[in-house]
Amino acid sequence: MSLLAVGTIAYDDIETPYASRQHVFGGSAMYFSVAASFFGPVSLVGVVGEDVREADLAFLRTRGIDTAGVEIQPGKTFRWGGRYATDWNTRTTLFTELNVLEHFAPKLTAAQRTARFLFLANAKPRVQHAALDQVERPEFVMADTMNLWIDIDRPDLLRLLRRIDAVVLNEEEARQLTGEKNLLKAAAAVLGLGPRFVILKKGEHGAFLIGNDVHFSIPAYPVDEVLDPTGAGDCFAGGFMGYLAAEGRASPATLRKAMLMGTCTASYCVEGFGVEALARLDRDSIPERYDQLLSIVTV
Amino acid sequence: MSLLAVGTIAYDDIETPYASRQHVFGGSAMYFSVAASFFGPVSLVGVVGEDVREADLAFLRTRGIDTAGVEIQPGKTFRWGGRYATDWNTRTTLFTELNVLEHFAPKLTAAQRTARFLFLANAKPRVQHAALDQVERPEFVMADTMNLWIDIDRPDLLRLLRRIDAVVLNEEEARQLTGEKNLLKAAAAVLGLGPRFVILKKGEHGAFLIGNDVHFSIPAYPVDEVLDPTGAGDCFAGGFMGYLAAEGRASPATLRKAMLMGTCTASYCVEGFGVEALARLDRDSIPERYDQLLSIVTV
Repeated sequence: MSLLAVGTIAYDDIETPYASRQHVFGGSAMYFSVAASFFGPVSLVGVVGEDVREADLAFLRTRGIDTAGVEIQPGKTFRWGGRYATDWNTRTTLFTELNVLEHFAPKLTAAQRTARFLFLANAKPRVQHAALDQVERPEFVMADTMNLWIDIDRPDLLRLLRRIDAVVLNEEEARQLTGEKNLLKAAAAVLGLGPRFVILKKGEHGAFLIGNDVHFSIPAYPVDEVLDPTGAGDCFAGGFMGYLAAEGRASPATLRKAMLMGTCTASYCVEGFGVEALARLDRDSIPERYDQLLSIVTV
Repeated sequence: MSLLAVGTIAYDDIETPYASRQHVFGGSAMYFSVAASFFGPVSLVGVVGEDVREADLAFLRTRGIDTAGVEIQPGKTFRWGGRYATDWNTRTTLFTELNVLEHFAPKLTAAQRTARFLFLANAKPRVQHAALDQVERPEFVMADTMNLWIDIDRPDLLRLLRRIDAVVLNEEEARQLTGEKNLLKAAAAVLGLGPRFVILKKGEHGAFLIGNDVHFSIPAYPVDEVLDPTGAGDCFAGGFMGYLAAEGRASPATLRKAMLMGTCTASYCVEGFGVEALARLDRDSIPERYDQLLSIVTV
C-alpha cells in the first residue's frame, strides 16, 4: 500500500456563470484520488449513501483506484451546492447536506494501515485524527482543511498540525488560521504550528511551498477556458501526492516537481465539470502539460 | 547611447493604510530610470517645474542617470495624489495636477536620438509617438500606458502598438484594451495589435511575458512588508529594460532573465516610499535577490 486518501465523496450541484449541473460526482477525497491515479495506485476511504451510482464507483475502479474502503451506508450521499461568481474567485455555498457523512468513522483495512503516503482530505479534524491513528508508520502525511474547522474545531486542528508532515491551505484559510495578512508570513506562522511543509494554493495565481529547507513558487498553468473550478485544490493535492508516492520520497527535488504535477492535474480539472475533463485524459496528458509548464517557468 | 526613458517626473502625495507622505519624488520615467540605473547608464527625458528640488535631480545624477534631457519649465512639476486600500490592490487617485506636463513635448539631444533601447513610460500616446519619431534606429522599444489613454486616445495608442517591440500592461489595462477577460487570451489579443512581446503585470501575483517564440511566467518576489507600491510597475520595467540594454539584445534567454531582474527591482521598490528603498541599495543587492528568486522558481 503506497498512497491512501481519506475524506468526502459527494454529489454536487454546481452553478457557474455559464452553466449549471446537478448531481455531479464530487467530494474532496474523490477528486484527489482521480488526480493521483495518473501516477499510480490509490486507495480511497470514504462513505456514500445507497443513492450512489454504480457507474461512479465503477469509474473509480477503471482508474485503478481501490474502492474497498468506500462504505455504502443506509441513507443519502453527502451533498453540496455552490455558485461561482463571474470572476471565479468568489464561491457561495448554497446548501450542505451531511447525510451519511454525519456519522462517518473511517475504518481502514489491514492493507490500508500500511500506507506510506496518506492524504487527509478536508474533513472534521476528529475524522482526520481517527484515520491517522490507524496508519502504522506513514512516511508522509498531508492534510487539507477549511474555514469551518479553523473556526469551530481549532484545538483539534492544531493538534492535527503537530502530527502531519504537510498542510495544504488556500489564502483565506492561512490568514484565518494565523491572523497574519501577508501570505508568506502566514505560511511561516503555519510552519511554526508543526508541519514540516506548508503549501499555499492561490487559485489562478499559482501556489507556493515552504519548509525549513525549501521555498518554491509556481504560477498556475494558463488555462484557456475555465468551466468549473470545483475540486481544483484537491486535484492539485492529488497530483502532488500521487507524484511523491510514485517517486517514493519527499525530497526538496521531488517536492518541487510535485508542485508542477499538482498544477497540471488541477489545470485539467477546471476544464470540465466534476472530473469529466480528467476522465477524458490518457496518461500522456500529464507529462505533456508538465513539459509545457516547465518551459513556461524555466528561466 | 544605450538606454533612454521618456515620460513623467512628478511629486506625489501618497496615503497608505499605515502612513502618509507628501511631495514624494516620483513619476513613471523617474522610477524607471532609477531601477534601470542598477544595470548601466540611462538617459532620462522629461519635464519638471521651477519647484523641482535640486537634491532630487542631484540624486538622479549620483545614480549615473543622464539628466540633460530633463527640462525645467516655468510653473510647477506634475503632481499626483493617491490612496491605497488595506489590500494594496485598490488604488484611488485623489488628485492630478498636470502643471508643466500639460505642454510637454519631448526634445531629444543628438546623443539621445541614437538610443538603442527606448522606454516610453506612461504618457499621452501623442507624446510617446513624438519621442519615438526622434530616435533614429532603436533596436528595442517598449511602452507602458494606462486606462485613461485606452479610453480617450485609443486610435493613437493602437497606432503606437504597431510601432513598438513590447508593451507592458496590468491586468485591468489588458482587459480594457481587448475586451477579453481571460488574461492569457487578452495578452494574445494584444500581440495581435502589433507588438512582438506583451508583458502582463499582476502585482503581488507576478508577471508573464508572451511573444511568438516565448512564454514565460514568474511569481512576485515574496516581500515581507510592503510600504508603498507606487512606481513598482515602472521599476519592473526599469529592471527589465536595464538588463536587456546591458546585455545588448532581447533574445528569449535574456527576456526571461530580464523578467527576474524586473521582479527584483520592483520588490525593492515597494519596501520604501518613493525610491527611498532603491536609493539605499548597493549594486550587489539586485544580484543577491536575483539568486534568491531564481532558487524559489527553479524546478
